Formats: sequence, C-alpha cells, structure tokens
Amino acid sequence: MAAALSWRPAGDADWRIVPMTDTGNDRWSASFPIERVGRYEFTVEAWLDEFGKFQYELSKKHAAGVDLKLELQEGQALVRQAAKLPRRRALKDLEKQLRAASADQQRILLLAPETARMMAQADARPFAVRLRSPVPVDAERVGAGFASWYELFPRSQSPTPGRHGTFDDVIARLPAIRDMGFDVLYFPPIHPIGKTNRKGRNNTLTPGPDDPGSPYAIGSEDGGHDAIERQLGTLEDFRRLSDAARGHGMELALDFAIQCSPDHPWLRQHPDWFIWRPDGTIRYAENPPKRYEDIVNVAFYAEGALPSLWVALRDVVLFWVEQGVRIFRVDNPHTKPFPFWEWMISDIRARYPDVIFLAEAFTRPKVMYRLAKVGFSQSYTYFTWRNTAREMREYLTELTTTAPRDFFRPHFFVNTPDINPEFLHASGRPGFLRRAALAATLSGLWGVYNGFELCESKSLNGREEYLDSEKYEIRAWDHDRPGNIIAEIRRLNHIRRTNPALHSHLGVTFLPCSNDQVLCFAKATEDHDNVVICVISFDPVNIQDFSFEVPASVLGLPAGQTVSGQSFVADDLMGDGTSSWQPGWRQARLDPAYMPFALWRLRSIEG
Amino acid sequence: MAAALSWRPAGDADWRIVPMTDTGNDRWSASFPIERVGRYEFTVEAWLDEFGKFQYELSKKHAAGVDLKLELQEGQALVRQAAKLPRRRALKDLEKQLRAASADQQRILLLAPETARMMAQADARPFAVRLRSPVPVDAERVGAGFASWYELFPRSQSPTPGRHGTFDDVIARLPAIRDMGFDVLYFPPIHPIGKTNRKGRNNTLTPGPDDPGSPYAIGSEDGGHDAIERQLGTLEDFRRLSDAARGHGMELALDFAIQCSPDHPWLRQHPDWFIWRPDGTIRYAENPPKRYEDIVNVAFYAEGALPSLWVALRDVVLFWVEQGVRIFRVDNPHTKPFPFWEWMISDIRARYPDVIFLAEAFTRPKVMYRLAKVGFSQSYTYFTWRNTAREMREYLTELTTTAPRDFFRPHFFVNTPDINPEFLHASGRPGFLRRAALAATLSGLWGVYNGFELCESKSLNGREEYLDSEKYEIRAWDHDRPGNIIAEIRRLNHIRRTNPALHSHLGVTFLPCSNDQVLCFAKATEDHDNVVICVISFDPVNIQDFSFEVPASVLGLPAGQTVSGQSFVADDLMGDGTSSWQPGWRQARLDPAYMPFALWRLRSIEG
Repeated sequence: MAAALSWRPAGDADWRIVPMTDTGNDRWSASFPIERVGRYEFTVEAWLDEFGKFQYELSKKHAAGVDLKLELQEGQALVRQAAKLPRRRALKDLEKQLRAASADQQRILLLAPETARMMAQADARPFAVRLRSPVPVDAERVGAGFASWYELFPRSQSPTPGRHGTFDDVIARLPAIRDMGFDVLYFPPIHPIGKTNRKGRNNTLTPGPDDPGSPYAIGSEDGGHDAIERQLGTLEDFRRLSDAARGHGMELALDFAIQCSPDHPWLRQHPDWFIWRPDGTIRYAENPPKRYEDIVNVAFYAEGALPSLWVALRDVVLFWVEQGVRIFRVDNPHTKPFPFWEWMISDIRARYPDVIFLAEAFTRPKVMYRLAKVGFSQSYTYFTWRNTAREMREYLTELTTTAPRDFFRPHFFVNTPDINPEFLHASGRPGFLRRAALAATLSGLWGVYNGFELCESKSLNGREEYLDSEKYEIRAWDHDRPGNIIAEIRRLNHIRRTNPALHSHLGVTFLPCSNDQVLCFAKATEDHDNVVICVISFDPVNIQDFSFEVPASVLGLPAGQTVSGQSFVADDLMGDGTSSWQPGWRQARLDPAYMPFALWRLRSIEG
Repeated sequence: MAAALSWRPAGDADWRIVPMTDTGNDRWSASFPIERVGRYEFTVEAWLDEFGKFQYELSKKHAAGVDLKLELQEGQALVRQAAKLPRRRALKDLEKQLRAASADQQRILLLAPETARMMAQADARPFAVRLRSPVPVDAERVGAGFASWYELFPRSQSPTPGRHGTFDDVIARLPAIRDMGFDVLYFPPIHPIGKTNRKGRNNTLTPGPDDPGSPYAIGSEDGGHDAIERQLGTLEDFRRLSDAARGHGMELALDFAIQCSPDHPWLRQHPDWFIWRPDGTIRYAENPPKRYEDIVNVAFYAEGALPSLWVALRDVVLFWVEQGVRIFRVDNPHTKPFPFWEWMISDIRARYPDVIFLAEAFTRPKVMYRLAKVGFSQSYTYFTWRNTAREMREYLTELTTTAPRDFFRPHFFVNTPDINPEFLHASGRPGFLRRAALAATLSGLWGVYNGFELCESKSLNGREEYLDSEKYEIRAWDHDRPGNIIAEIRRLNHIRRTNPALHSHLGVTFLPCSNDQVLCFAKATEDHDNVVICVISFDPVNIQDFSFEVPASVLGLPAGQTVSGQSFVADDLMGDGTSSWQPGWRQARLDPAYMPFALWRLRSIEG
C-alpha cells in the first residue's frame, strides 16, 4: 500500500503532496508546515502500490540468494506497461535499457530510487480510496491559546466617585493594568442602553432616574450594536483607546451580545427578525430562575431573518473588526444556532484570520465542545465550580486526555460579573490566591474581572451574584485596597510569560501526593525544555503538610535514571531561592496565611 | 428536541417507529426487539419539537402561578396552524373546542397527552436531521457467540494404524467427543488433494508414494472445492456423518480455504482467474518464512475474475450449506479482499441467516477487527501468545472495553494444527490444564485440536509446529494416553454450559491479587444472576500462595454492603464443596501438581 497527504492553504488552486510513512500497526503519518494564520485543508489518499511491492520482494529475494529470472521479467513487464502512457519518454528509455542489460544490471535498475520515482509518477493508483471531503484546519495566532485577560466596565473607571467613566478614564488605567501583566483588556457591551424595562441597582425592576441600566440591554434611540453609549465617548475616542492599549502591549476585546433592548432600532426597522406575541409584544429573555425583562431576542429562523439578520449580525462584527478589534467574547452562543456560528466565524476569519472568538457558554459539555468544533477559538469552562483538588484533577484529565484535547481551548476565568464564586465568599485572601494560581498555571488562557485582585467578594443574599453589581450601577473602585493580591498576580503573569510550559492547558501531569487537600502537578513543554512544578493547597485556613513525588519522567528522562544519581535544580518562582532536588518523594508545607501555593522551575543537571 | 428510532427487519417495506428518551447529558435512548435471526436496520431522526416545548413551558408557568393569557393564545395558534393540513379533522375539532373553552379548560386541553399525540402526528418536524444511511444490525444465533469446538482430521480416525480414516470412522468417534462436552466438530478441508508438488511428512518436498499430502492443497482430477476426497467417503457418507453428529447434539464445521492445488480443475477451466508468470506457471503461496509449494492462489481482481470467480466461490459455500453445513472456518481471510467477504457473507446470510463464519486471521489488530466489521461472526485471536497473567489481563481489557467490544467475538483455540504453542513444549500437564481453563472461562468460544486433550506437545525442531503433523501424514491417536486431561475438559465444558456468565468474553472483572503469577477474575451475567470466580496460576511448576479480593460489587451489590455482614455462598465448581465467603480479601493456594486453577460459583445470601 502507498498513501499520500495532499494539503493547501484554503483558496490556493494547487494541492501540495507529501508521501505518507507507515509507522506500524496500520498507522500512517505525514506532516505539512503551517506558515501563516488562517485556514488550511488536507486530504489523504491510499492505493495499491504494485511497483513498490515488486521492489520490496525483489530486494528480499536477492538478499536470500533466490534465482530472480522470473522476477526480472515481471519487473520489465511492469515498466513496459507504465511506459505505454503518453509522455513517458524516460520510462521508454528505461525499458530499452532494461532489454539490453545483464541480469545484474536489470536488478540494479529495477531497484533504483529513480525508477521508483518514475514508476510512482506513472502509477494509475489502483484501488485508490480517499477521504470523503478535505479536512479543514484552522491555524490561529498564538493569542488564541495563550493570553491573560482583564475585564472591566469602562463606565466605572472615573476617578471621581459617582461620575460616568469614559474611554479616556480607561486610558488612564492602562498602565496599572499592564503592570499586572495582562495583555487583553475586555469590556462588556459599550453600546447605547435601552430605557424600556431598564434594570435598577441589584437587578431590581424599579430603576432610579440616574440608574444607567445593564449594558447587555443593547440599543436605544441613539443606535444599536454599531453605536457607542454617548457617555463613554465617541468612535474616535474608542479608536484612541484602542491605539493606547496597543501602545502598552495590550489589545481590546469586545462583547458580542446579540440580544436587544426593546428600544433597539432593529425592532422598528426589521420587525420580521422577531417573533411577536398575540398582544404585539416580544417575549423577554429568560434563563430560569434568571429573567432579563430588559432584553428581547432576535429569531434566527423567523420568516424574514434569513439571510438579512444573519448578514446584519456578521456586519456588526465586521464593523468592529474594521475599528481594529480582533477579539470578541460572545455572550451565550449556545442559545443561538450552530449553523449561524459556523458560517459567521468562517466568513469573518476568511477575511481577518487573526480574529478570535471566545464562547461564553456555560452549558452541557457536548454543546460546549460543539461550539469549539464549529469555530470558537476558546471557551469559558466549569473551572468556576471545581472546588476540590480531586475535581480539578478530573476536569483537567478530561480536557487534556479525551477528544476535546484536539479542538477545545479552555479559558479559566477566576470570576466574572455574573459569577461571584461561592467559595470566595468566605475563603478570604488565601482563596483568591489559590484561585489565581490554579487558573494561571493550569490554563494557557486565564481571566480576571475587576475587583478580584482586590479580593472583592460581597454577594447578593449569599448567592453567586455580586452585591451592587456593576451590571446595574456605576462603581468606584479603591484600587489600593489593603490586602489586595496585585503583586501576586503581577508575579504569576510574569511567571506565565517566561515559562512556555504554562502557555497551554496541555502538558500537565498530576503528581502522586499524600494529602487530598493539595493539588500537585507538573507542566512541561513537549520537548521538556521547560518544566514547572506546582503545589496548591485547597485549604484556605489550615497549614497543610504533605509529601509529593517528582519522578524523573517529568523532565523527559527515562524512569531508570531516577536511581543513577540524577538530580534537579529547582528555582523557586514565587520566592527567589534555588535548591537541589533528587527525583522521588519530597516533603513540603503550605501555610495559607503566607502563601497557599508554590511553584518551581525544574532543570536537570548531570548527577 | 424530539427524536425517534425507526427500525425494520431487512427486506420489510415498513419502518416501525419508537420515540427516543432523553437520558441526560445529550444522550438519547430507544430500543427495538430482535425477534428472529438475520439482518435488521435502524435509523435515527431528531427535530425541533415546538409543541413539546410549548407544553413544557405552559405547565411550568402554570405551576409557578404565572398569568397564562398570552401562552394560551399561542397554544391555540399552534393548533390552528397544524389543523390547516389536510385530513386533520380531530385537530379542527380541537381548535373549535378551544375557541369555546374557558381559560382553565384551554390549559387542560392544551396539556392533554391526546393533544400531544395529535400534534406530534401533524408535526412537520422542523430542522429534522437523520443518519446519512440506515445502520445494519446482524442478529445471529446463540452458537455464533457461545460454543465449544473440537477439531480433528477425519483421515486420522481409523482405529487401524496406517489406514486412511473415513467418515464412518468419525461417526464411531462421535460419542467420545460429545462426552467431552464439545458441540461443534470441525474438519480441515475434506476435498481431493493435488499431486503436483505434494508435501511429504513434516512439510518436506520429497513425499513418499503413499503420503497423502496436505488437505489444504485442494483439488485434483477428482474435483475441487465441491468434491470429497474419495478415501474419506462419498457425499452420501458425509450427510450421514452430519446427521449422526446432529443426533449427538453436535454440528459440523467445514474449512473454507480458497487456495488451489496446481491440479485443481479451475486452472484449466478458468485460467483467467489466475495470474500467470512469464514462464507459464503460477506463483505458489508464501507467508515468509513459510512456503506452500503445493498451493496456488486465485486472483480476485484478475481480468476474468469479476464476477465469475466471486460467484463461483459463493456457490462453493452455498453448495455445502445445502448439504446442511452452517459453520465455516475461513482460512486466511485477511489475504483476500474485504469487499469480497462483505458481499459473500451478506449474500449467504441473507439466504441462510444461521450460517456462521469464523475468521482464521492471525494478523494486525486493525485487519482482524475489520474482518469482524465486514461480516465474520468470530475470529481467532492473540490468545495463543499471551503467556503471562498481565498479558492476558491486558488483552481481555482491550477486547472487552475498547471499540471491538461491540463487534468482535474472540474464539480462543488452545492449539491448532498450525500452532503447537511454545509454552506447552515444556509445561507438562499443568500447562495444558491452565490453557484449557483460561480459554474455557475467558471466552464464550473455545476450541481444542485433537491431541491437546492428550497433552501432545512434541514439536518440530523446537518450533511452534507439531512433529509428525497430521497436515502431512495420517496419525493414529492413543485416545487413552496416560495423564490425559479428558476428564478435566469434560468438567470445564459442563461448567460452561451450566454457567451463563461463561457464555461470552464480556462481563469480566479482574480482581486485585497479591501474586503476579496468578490471574484472578470474576465473570458475571449482566443481571449478576450468575457469577463465577476464577483463579488460574501461570506457574506450571511451583505452588503459588496468594490472596485476592472479592468485592461486593462483583455480585452487583453496592460497595457499602461489604461492611454490613453480607456474605456469599461459594460452590467449588472443580471440586464439590460449598463454603461461606465474606466480601474482601481471601487467601488461596494453587498447586500445579494437583490443579493449577480453581473456579467458584458465587451466590449472595442475606448476612
């Protein structure tokens, strides 16, 4: 059998072809280079390789000293047959050469690599089978897999309490955010906010006259998804902010939330994009027990929606892409049709292959994985609710060893405006440190929502919601709050940048550990050039003593070397010391009052 | 969403439809009954269930005490829409009823199961998706999965040494074979044997004038695949043997070996079924380092072979089916095309669904599994070469927990005329007992080739071949050889028949065991009504002491019950005693000089 891989950058007319290699046990392998961001495609073909089989048997029989008379005649017949095709002058020449040659010369000619090459070109590929259709491969930029996000509400960034913040206020905050080591700055929607059914503070239905409403109630008489809330600034101001962020080595991410306030211009301009109830209203959004009285949803399959609504939504994204935005956090994509996302994302990425879409989908696993398959670069995850070492280990094992490993990139947010994790309500500072360490080390993508670095955890009635949530009011943040963890986050982001092992959730190995309250793992790059050991305590109160095993294999060394005097150098990444480790079990202690985790970079030296 | 399973026996015009149930986490389930042997097919359809969604929300809102005015209007609109279809009188009546009803009555009507049924019938199934094509399911008879085979060469069955045995001699052997508990009696080819390049004793190329040749060199001037070697008897004699076997509760299995002796009538009648070399010969069969100088192969894709050769081969099988044979052991199917097997087996089984094909394929795993997928009921396996407890555990784990679990039935032969397992050359009687116990308990299908029960192990030059192999000469067997294991095989087959847990390789659980030389496992039926515990020593020489754990879960009991005084009754199946066991670890000892394995049937009693 022979097999070949054909590949091309999408849009190219010509396929490039690479022979595949039999790697044993009916597996075949080939690779092709990814030289630019964007879509590629490949296909695979396999066929019966008659001349290859002939060469294989001829050389084996020659080695065994068998009489080759018949084989040489059969080889000549194969060449004669192939030479009959038009434009096969070289094969015709070979045929003549063979006729005139001695048996030894015939054998040498028939086994020559050049003969194999010519015969392969003339091969009719009998019994060829190929993939039903080419397989697409999306090549994305590094930021699709490795980035540190910071989320804030621009309207809360005014230094003057009670004043509506502006894009210029955000510009003033950029140095502090960049100083914490973040590279993506993400805003909830920045569009005009509707007045009908506007929400008051703490999600009440009785807003005061100055309450700004939820930015997710998009659209008013001032415009819809391509407009900017006038109190934040102009499009010009937005572009200036975007440039300033870039100047600090950061980029902006915007929210793509498809819902509309009842005041959105689309309701008048495109009534056929909505489903109207018998009383002339539109059903407001619900996600029991949550109700979004200030929001209505478009209907993707309403009679007037195809294709105009789909195109309009695509054009909203395109509009912001043309303003320089390359990252979109998509609100609740799982409540919209998969075919829409598949079409929209591939349309956008065909034009701008550096665009990244993050799926804010908290739903059943198969749906989250499907969103990744149809085009999302990243996804929110269940990280939020994995509160024991064992749960975390099991979740990471699913993400790194089962099918999603190949297509699903997890984004670990430590908190969001919607999720004030219950665990943090009472854990105090050690809980925030633990959570930051877990997200920053276990995932290539992690995110912090403004307030986490200040250990903000006040909840609304003990629920998973923030008290006085910025979703419904303007907050003024005390950025120098005592007991904050800004320095630790800065350190974590620095460690992430300088250790490639932390640039992905892959490459994790959980280490045997004597204590259920402690998660011990190694992260390593594929070549084991960079190895980080992490031990993280899940107990926010008590000191935990434990022992854990560091096998030689985490450095890519064969297990046998553990007994041959091999030793490691361990650089303490959160502290500053360096120590010498032996492979095997070692003692450790984590004191939450001081630091609930420790990280070491491990290097091997000859023993 | 709603989903339905459609199914039918192949050939039926009408599909039967079963609604599918959402079993959680995006899995849906439905089942259909298999009421006869043969092919079935099914397909699955899923669609948006608008009225189902309406009913769900209406009942939820009613329970929450919400005002239902708009919902009731929307429900009526759905009924009105559906009633527009032709022949929906019942829905038109419902529509009228709804118009006249009070709000309470409307709600009750709209939530009625009868309304759901009518609306489901009228449902246009928006967004329906279905499988690309129906999935075939082959229902086979019990013997395809559970049977005990015995293999012999009819020509070696004469009670007079040196005489060529006959079918009548086999009839005389039937009571002894049945007495050992076997239910399938399998013969290597029984056709006329070629003279050209006939093999002599021990696979030599210099036969004496009386050497009978290998029965795999099929065909002479006396006929080919549909003829019988005249020294064995006539077709009439064969039918008599077949009837006699049936009278003893056994059935015959024949070999389907496609190769030909150079004297096979097909070479003259159908030269275009073969590939001829430049010197007018046909390449003989090879499987390096083995050479089969007395055999040539047909060429499935030779210019004159399609379809006449394929049809002729099918007709050979059909001929023997019509003589009453329903089981075929197929020689080396992996060296013939998959499409041939797929077509031939489905053609035969469409006519005679009780026909069973066993693949004698010792090759790469993917090829063996593929043969099962294209239609073979059973397959030879790597059992032969798994010589440690750990290897056996790993192989069974592959067979019972990975994809092949669903389509591959292993047949564990303890030996074959081709394979005199190296392990048995020196293991003595304990090795034979161990091997019998492993095959008889781990697999629903096991097979013994004549001589194994006598502990025959003399090899040709220490290789995996038998000395004085029956493949090349007529043997006379001393059926009462001292030290034979006939009684133990009889016992094993009796235990198999009376314990349904042993009717399949599935349902195995390997038990924790303190000793690497001992394999401990439980076999259980799905309902845990029958549970057998097996401990088998791999050491043919030394006594092995060990402890092993029998958790309550092997009896289908929750783990918690292990501490609540639960106890088991264990019937010693190879001995005769009964004892009381507690769940947990227990001590045991196996002495190869006495019996290298022990089996217990386990029953639970209230503690």
